[in-house]
Amino acid sequence: MNPPNPSILQRQSLATLLPAVLLSLLPAMALADPLPSWNAGHSKSTIVDFVETTSDPDSEDFVPQERRIAVFDNDGTLWSEQPAYTQLLYALDRASEADPEALDTPLKKAAAEGDIDTLLEAGEEGIQALLSLSHQDLSLSDFQQDVSDWLANATHPATGRFYTDMVYQPMLELLGYLRDHGFSTYIVSGGGLEFMRVFASDVYGVPPQNIIGSTGEMELVDLEDDPQLYKRGGDIWLDDGPGKVISINRHLGQRPILAVGNSDGDVPMLIWTTEGEGPRLGVLVHHTDGEREVAYDSDSHIGRLADGLEQAEARDWQLIDMARDWQRLYPEKP
Amino acid sequence: MNPPNPSILQRQSLATLLPAVLLSLLPAMALADPLPSWNAGHSKSTIVDFVETTSDPDSEDFVPQERRIAVFDNDGTLWSEQPAYTQLLYALDRASEADPEALDTPLKKAAAEGDIDTLLEAGEEGIQALLSLSHQDLSLSDFQQDVSDWLANATHPATGRFYTDMVYQPMLELLGYLRDHGFSTYIVSGGGLEFMRVFASDVYGVPPQNIIGSTGEMELVDLEDDPQLYKRGGDIWLDDGPGKVISINRHLGQRPILAVGNSDGDVPMLIWTTEGEGPRLGVLVHHTDGEREVAYDSDSHIGRLADGLEQAEARDWQLIDMARDWQRLYPEKP
Repeated sequence: MNPPNPSILQRQSLATLLPAVLLSLLPAMALADPLPSWNAGHSKSTIVDFVETTSDPDSEDFVPQERRIAVFDNDGTLWSEQPAYTQLLYALDRASEADPEALDTPLKKAAAEGDIDTLLEAGEEGIQALLSLSHQDLSLSDFQQDVSDWLANATHPATGRFYTDMVYQPMLELLGYLRDHGFSTYIVSGGGLEFMRVFASDVYGVPPQNIIGSTGEMELVDLEDDPQLYKRGGDIWLDDGPGKVISINRHLGQRPILAVGNSDGDVPMLIWTTEGEGPRLGVLVHHTDGEREVAYDSDSHIGRLADGLEQAEARDWQLIDMARDWQRLYPEKP
Repeated sequence: MNPPNPSILQRQSLATLLPAVLLSLLPAMALADPLPSWNAGHSKSTIVDFVETTSDPDSEDFVPQERRIAVFDNDGTLWSEQPAYTQLLYALDRASEADPEALDTPLKKAAAEGDIDTLLEAGEEGIQALLSLSHQDLSLSDFQQDVSDWLANATHPATGRFYTDMVYQPMLELLGYLRDHGFSTYIVSGGGLEFMRVFASDVYGVPPQNIIGSTGEMELVDLEDDPQLYKRGGDIWLDDGPGKVISINRHLGQRPILAVGNSDGDVPMLIWTTEGEGPRLGVLVHHTDGEREVAYDSDSHIGRLADGLEQAEARDWQLIDMARDWQRLYPEKP
């Protein structure tokens, strides 16, 4: 009897083994790349190391699930914020449609004309004028329906995309990866609380009770027959800078262990998070990508980042270089 | 061979069978009485029916877990509030120890002398005077340590119990029963947010992020070197009446499906909860138990209940008659 032809044997073995080999590789591939839109490098490995060690009961850096809390800024961190915050564009759209009789101050006229420079120069008064034409004296449910309608139709002037399609794919992956490892994910944004709640659950998987944001005054009307919440004018709680820390404490009563932001307004939140005891991580997104988005930092009105770059260096926060670290910016179009 | 003695056989069989019979009964007993400190009756069966049907995927009243949200008032609902709110007793204790030089107004003097009538007559100014001597211009961590120390030592004038041993055993069972059925349990109290967080996790199993309450102004100090939150004076957010609805919306962004309270200050929260769509339950605790606690409703300064009794009748809320419905009031002493 002749010995079997070795080359045939080899081919047979390979053919038999291949499916099993591929199957055995699948979990390893999933473990090896939980963040497919992140390029290999220090940013990615730092984040993965932090998530794996804090969620591994056998690690000395293990953090119990109830303290595995991650907070994310929204504008410029989870979705694009240039040429202006999406909520600002919504407000300007609505102000442009305002009844001319409602334009009874120069600032309201500026709002209706889309004169952003005049509004920003006027500071909080300018914002109040704009909000008065778009965000107040209507029921919360009418407001949120209107935002929903707007988001379903308005498109970005440069990309032509819907704004909810201008979320960062790498961040969607990071949010899911964190939740898969027992983290609770929260948004802590200078944007309006009720504006974000319209889309954050569908787009980010973040439920309404995990959103912290700026708020105006609210009134409960018609309690006896048909109770409704109405958005009113008056004081605004601006959830930015130190306000983010105060809001986080008010809402959560504990320090997060991971904070992700992109501007100087996020610096107090990142310090508060990373100066706590035990394993901590601060992550700062640096908008370096002039080709796929806009490159900006210290000179920008929107999302200014200057102090944060120094703090990141001094406090060993992970700086995300968008051009280098992110293989893909936005999700594939549906 | 004689047949075996039947009586011996019987005894043997019973002895053999008994442990198995008992074991098989245990799950059935647990199902049959999830609330052992609640006497059988309409209150108990209404609550059990609501919890079982809303958490049963095969029921037409099933509510998905993310919307199974229950809110509880604290003072008078989860623990005793007579002769005065525990937090008020804490504040008076601390005011009585204040530096005499700090007593620079008549209301502060009244606070230091424990003159509750004068403080209450002065309304918010009276409360502010009391809080200024006990709740402000100290770090949040120092405040919470002080509350913790006080709760570990102060005892109730009538019962001699620690205040945290004057929680209602039936409510502890209800909180656990709800969580076992996938409900998220929240406290929504007129009491101070940071005061409640000191004990609510240990005593009620309610974590800090599930607590909604009254708040004062907070300041972030020493951000660069040793960031700390400080309690300051200024405006107070009073989480009572319509304010509870506004707070719930701000924190949760959705209506609860179950609300439990005991005073007129809880009426808006119960209306807001029960007027939503789908299965809803409002529960109102009526302090009818003059033997084990204090019987009070419409004539009481603390926990006044008048409108609520009419609303409960009109809106079919479940009224808890403490004397009749609760077999036990407080937990057994350790």
